[in-house]
Amino acid sequence: MVRIAVAGASGYAGGELLRLLLQHPEVEIGALTAGGNAGRRLGEFQPHLPLLADRVLEESTAEVLGGHDVVFLALPHGRSAEIAAQLGGSTLVIDCGADHRLRDADAWDRWYGGEHAGHWPYGLPELPGGREALRSTTRVAVPGCFPTVSSLALAPALAAGLVGPEVVITAVTGTSGAGKSLKPHLLGAEVMGSLSAYGVGGAHRHTPEIAQNLSGVSGRPVSVSFTPVLAPLPRGILATCTAPLTGAGAEAREVYDKAYAAEPFVHLLPEGQWPTTKATLGSNTVHLQVAVDVDAARLVVVAAIDNLAKGTAGGAIQCMNIALGLPETTGLPTTGVAP
Amino acid sequence: MVRIAVAGASGYAGGELLRLLLQHPEVEIGALTAGGNAGRRLGEFQPHLPLLADRVLEESTAEVLGGHDVVFLALPHGRSAEIAAQLGGSTLVIDCGADHRLRDADAWDRWYGGEHAGHWPYGLPELPGGREALRSTTRVAVPGCFPTVSSLALAPALAAGLVGPEVVITAVTGTSGAGKSLKPHLLGAEVMGSLSAYGVGGAHRHTPEIAQNLSGVSGRPVSVSFTPVLAPLPRGILATCTAPLTGAGAEAREVYDKAYAAEPFVHLLPEGQWPTTKATLGSNTVHLQVAVDVDAARLVVVAAIDNLAKGTAGGAIQCMNIALGLPETTGLPTTGVAP
Amino acid sequence: MVRIAVAGASGYAGGELLRLLLQHPEVEIGALTAGGNAGRRLGEFQPHLPLLADRVLEESTAEVLGGHDVVFLALPHGRSAEIAAQLGGSTLVIDCGADHRLRDADAWDRWYGGEHAGHWPYGLPELPGGREALRSTTRVAVPGCFPTVSSLALAPALAAGLVGPEVVITAVTGTSGAGKSLKPHLLGAEVMGSLSAYGVGGAHRHTPEIAQNLSGVSGRPVSVSFTPVLAPLPRGILATCTAPLTGAGAEAREVYDKAYAAEPFVHLLPEGQWPTTKATLGSNTVHLQVAVDVDAARLVVVAAIDNLAKGTAGGAIQCMNIALGLPETTGLPTTGVAP
Amino acid sequence: MVRIAVAGASGYAGGELLRLLLQHPEVEIGALTAGGNAGRRLGEFQPHLPLLADRVLEESTAEVLGGHDVVFLALPHGRSAEIAAQLGGSTLVIDCGADHRLRDADAWDRWYGGEHAGHWPYGLPELPGGREALRSTTRVAVPGCFPTVSSLALAPALAAGLVGPEVVITAVTGTSGAGKSLKPHLLGAEVMGSLSAYGVGGAHRHTPEIAQNLSGVSGRPVSVSFTPVLAPLPRGILATCTAPLTGAGAEAREVYDKAYAAEPFVHLLPEGQWPTTKATLGSNTVHLQVAVDVDAARLVVVAAIDNLAKGTAGGAIQCMNIALGLPETTGLPTTGVAP
Repeated sequence: MVRIAVAGASGYAGGELLRLLLQHPEVEIGALTAGGNAGRRLGEFQPHLPLLADRVLEESTAEVLGGHDVVFLALPHGRSAEIAAQLGGSTLVIDCGADHRLRDADAWDRWYGGEHAGHWPYGLPELPGGREALRSTTRVAVPGCFPTVSSLALAPALAAGLVGPEVVITAVTGTSGAGKSLKPHLLGAEVMGSLSAYGVGGAHRHTPEIAQNLSGVSGRPVSVSFTPVLAPLPRGILATCTAPLTGAGAEAREVYDKAYAAEPFVHLLPEGQWPTTKATLGSNTVHLQVAVDVDAARLVVVAAIDNLAKGTAGGAIQCMNIALGLPETTGLPTTGVAP
Repeated sequence: MVRIAVAGASGYAGGELLRLLLQHPEVEIGALTAGGNAGRRLGEFQPHLPLLADRVLEESTAEVLGGHDVVFLALPHGRSAEIAAQLGGSTLVIDCGADHRLRDADAWDRWYGGEHAGHWPYGLPELPGGREALRSTTRVAVPGCFPTVSSLALAPALAAGLVGPEVVITAVTGTSGAGKSLKPHLLGAEVMGSLSAYGVGGAHRHTPEIAQNLSGVSGRPVSVSFTPVLAPLPRGILATCTAPLTGAGAEAREVYDKAYAAEPFVHLLPEGQWPTTKATLGSNTVHLQVAVDVDAARLVVVAAIDNLAKGTAGGAIQCMNIALGLPETTGLPTTGVAP
Repeated sequence: MVRIAVAGASGYAGGELLRLLLQHPEVEIGALTAGGNAGRRLGEFQPHLPLLADRVLEESTAEVLGGHDVVFLALPHGRSAEIAAQLGGSTLVIDCGADHRLRDADAWDRWYGGEHAGHWPYGLPELPGGREALRSTTRVAVPGCFPTVSSLALAPALAAGLVGPEVVITAVTGTSGAGKSLKPHLLGAEVMGSLSAYGVGGAHRHTPEIAQNLSGVSGRPVSVSFTPVLAPLPRGILATCTAPLTGAGAEAREVYDKAYAAEPFVHLLPEGQWPTTKATLGSNTVHLQVAVDVDAARLVVVAAIDNLAKGTAGGAIQCMNIALGLPETTGLPTTGVAP
Repeated sequence: MVRIAVAGASGYAGGELLRLLLQHPEVEIGALTAGGNAGRRLGEFQPHLPLLADRVLEESTAEVLGGHDVVFLALPHGRSAEIAAQLGGSTLVIDCGADHRLRDADAWDRWYGGEHAGHWPYGLPELPGGREALRSTTRVAVPGCFPTVSSLALAPALAAGLVGPEVVITAVTGTSGAGKSLKPHLLGAEVMGSLSAYGVGGAHRHTPEIAQNLSGVSGRPVSVSFTPVLAPLPRGILATCTAPLTGAGAEAREVYDKAYAAEPFVHLLPEGQWPTTKATLGSNTVHLQVAVDVDAARLVVVAAIDNLAKGTAGGAIQCMNIALGLPETTGLPTTGVAP
């Protein structure tokens, strides 16, 4: 059995890691840690996990987390780099935060500020070369939720030269992506019955990460116009991703079919069926569909994920499986919870 | 007093027309008609309108509707053209359906099929020249909800040459836009907790209407990539509209400020504040904000409306006011219902 | 014109007061005050009120509030009593908080703690004698939202001796009733897709207020089993109120019909039609329906209100109208916003 | 491996049976049948089950369903009795519909009408004697969702004589309980942002089933005042169940603790923690909490379930496990999906 610890166990990403790890046949759940909530029962924060309800949250320190085979960090950025630096090289450290996603120190400084903690192998196995980078690694930077869905939606088209390098993405998201932050605009009374945009005009921190991924795939700089929209649901992202076609686009479906036919967690839907986030709820899957807009000469890819599952915790466990040499799909559901 | 009739009074658009007309000081509500629901009390279908609860729905025929000063048609397309043809020229007929929106018979045939009923003055007064076209008219084609918000979001930039003519729009919408259609994907259990796209790749019938409006404004063909997304809320559209900048875009805010400063129903929000659909709920307003994405070299305009109010019934009443020579804002709320 | 001030204008009750007062033909909106938000624009907090967007919030002090004809207090309990004590007797002070609702100082101490600020005329005109108590008063204690709907649901049956004095109430509520409190369980991600109970077993502070009202109506002590349930919607309360029948209950409908036939804001629905909160959204109405459960020998009354409108701000303005000698319905909508 | 068939596989109960059976290690999924949807791919109706997407729905006939070890019937009432009558006695038939729940033919006739198909062993193992009735049976009547949660909430108190036999239940439910019925009041635009009651005054068909269960437990007739409330969420029931205390109620918690300590799927929450439906989402659990209301002299039990899981499909599989002699918890999650 692989012994794991979760730092940030009282938050949404931490809760989802535990929900999925409870179904994983090869792991044993060790220390659960938190910041301000240390000393309290997990059941207060995660009432959906009755099997772990009486576990007491410990402090998020290297002492507590060390000594496990795998440590998942679900912490604010900055904090995870700090703790990771104190964990031994033989521990597999999987960072669900942003600290080690960007390659470029200047980009880090511009978008997050402060010193760059360095770049770790990037946890998106479905990108070209992505899987290989994760084998036997002891450090994984889990992608952001928007970069996960957006990169997988556009990578095949860019890699195949089907579209030009100016992409436009509008991604609608549930509110759990913002975490348990006590901010007025995240209150139920504000969110329900309303839609709003934020981080407009390239201001969202996931923008450079999407650009990094897509530029890597296409071998040249890709410009990314990215707008996130907040919608009244707890979980789920639906990304509408478009890019100018370089030709007629007749081969679009074939390109996607080929790219993802062997991927266990990416489902290109049958023609005529469009993704819904609910079909992915709680599962580690991406559902997608492509269309060629002849009049506008653009490719449109619509992709759905559960932001906490494939978008964070499920993706993180998938990376753990690869890094540890376990079958990649171990313990990861492809079945959603609907309706 | 202006005597009005509403055809399709048991549906969502009909209900919203009545809700707003009850607040209008210059009108008297005459015949209320329906298709299959004729003979039943309005209160069964519109329990939020207790003042009209005991009104009995009549058949939607020219006999019943004739003899009013104004007839609002909130009917399926095809049906409104049929009835309108039988109504006298002195009656102001305001069609909330699609029959008379498109100028081009071929476009009509491609998107809707069948014979083109002809083009009527288009009910979007805030477009350049829009107000003038409506004065003293006896026929108004009320725009679709998506064309209303999208056209107002992009018209100033296109008119000013701030952006090029290839626009990308993703509009997230509540479910009332689909009407009271009994379709499985509109059931509460399907809609709540889920997001989905539809009419992707230019397949939505509002696409040619948006293109018609924007091409008219910019004086050359505008290509429109339009994707509607269904989200779990009853009312509201939030449109994210982007287009490639022709220059640095420094004048963007000024362009919008100038375009809408005098418009009573279009609010350019203060810098730093982003639209929410809830702020427009039940009101006849458009809330919008602009951003320049320097990295992606695109203008991004985010605009919010209530699809049933400014997007349908409110817009229709605004047109009635203009056509009848009443003050344009008579009876139309700019205050939303929130939270 | 009556000059009014609103203390607590950045909160939900304050926002709703302003939304309704903007539609009131006899008032002029004066000072708007806040606690921590003083100095900021109202538009930051109430984007649905564009007509007041540029008003700057002042401090909630007697200096600022004094000099108006009417002062609405939408403040945490304790704070309103403190300010009210400093306002002159000629000002009409309408307290939307709890400070002056309970007659009994011991009950105040048990449920709220601290010194009792005293009892003011109670703002529920539809209760027997309720209207008279409000004429020419300069102090009004606006009822809690649950007491409003529960008392109106059960008062006629108790007054008529139709039921015995042991009542059971389960009231399902939207989340705005809790205000803009930044508490984890009110976050959108927690609320959406979930139901929960709170204040169970008589622990909710509205319980003694309901008991006070119903005991007053029936002339003997009424025991109240009250359970509030939190549901995923922003606004609305649906109360299911039951009590043991003293007889066969055949006259139930007649009793309610008689009680409320002349009330402008209470609608007994036609037989077979059941209340929905949405039909009351944004309006000052109560919708209700009664049923006799022969097997269980209980009367069941289901009543719906908008907690912020008839349940708080609308009820407050109705009281203002009465106290000032204006027609009671002035400026108050009976039309809801649906769907 | 146990070979199972599911009749009604395109509906909500059928989908949930399949979702859970896909996680069950001892079963193999055989025929999937439907009514009007026969001949179509399962993936059209259950996009969250990609592993079964290409299965084609067959006709719901005894020919197709026969030859499996277990047949789950998720069909309208009447239809399941008809099919069950044609299935051999050696097949375990588990009816998720109402046909075989009521013992009393007169009650059947009053509530459902038509001929009584007879009474089968009742699938609520947690009731006293419930588990024993299911061992080695080949016929199971799965309880309704409201009877499941209500009976488990009140049975211990009635069995212990803690409360008298007049119970009052208000159960708030998500909309999937109504199935995929295309009815206007179930449309998303109607449901979202609204609350409504239905089947008030003892008119809901689950009332006699609750009375049957509770009368059985207490050994004397129990009168049930039951009101269901529809709320805007897809899944989940929160039942508030109260009854008059016979004494002081001090032993209430101990009674519940004793009753459910050994039950794997019933969780009495720690004192001070109240159930939320979300914590049970997708799991086979009941979460409950008890309170003694001293002022009202009533016991209040609040219980939460997922209506499709423990309330239907999970409960059905639990019964299958017992009937087949498998460990009762096989394949059934106790972990919910939150937030």
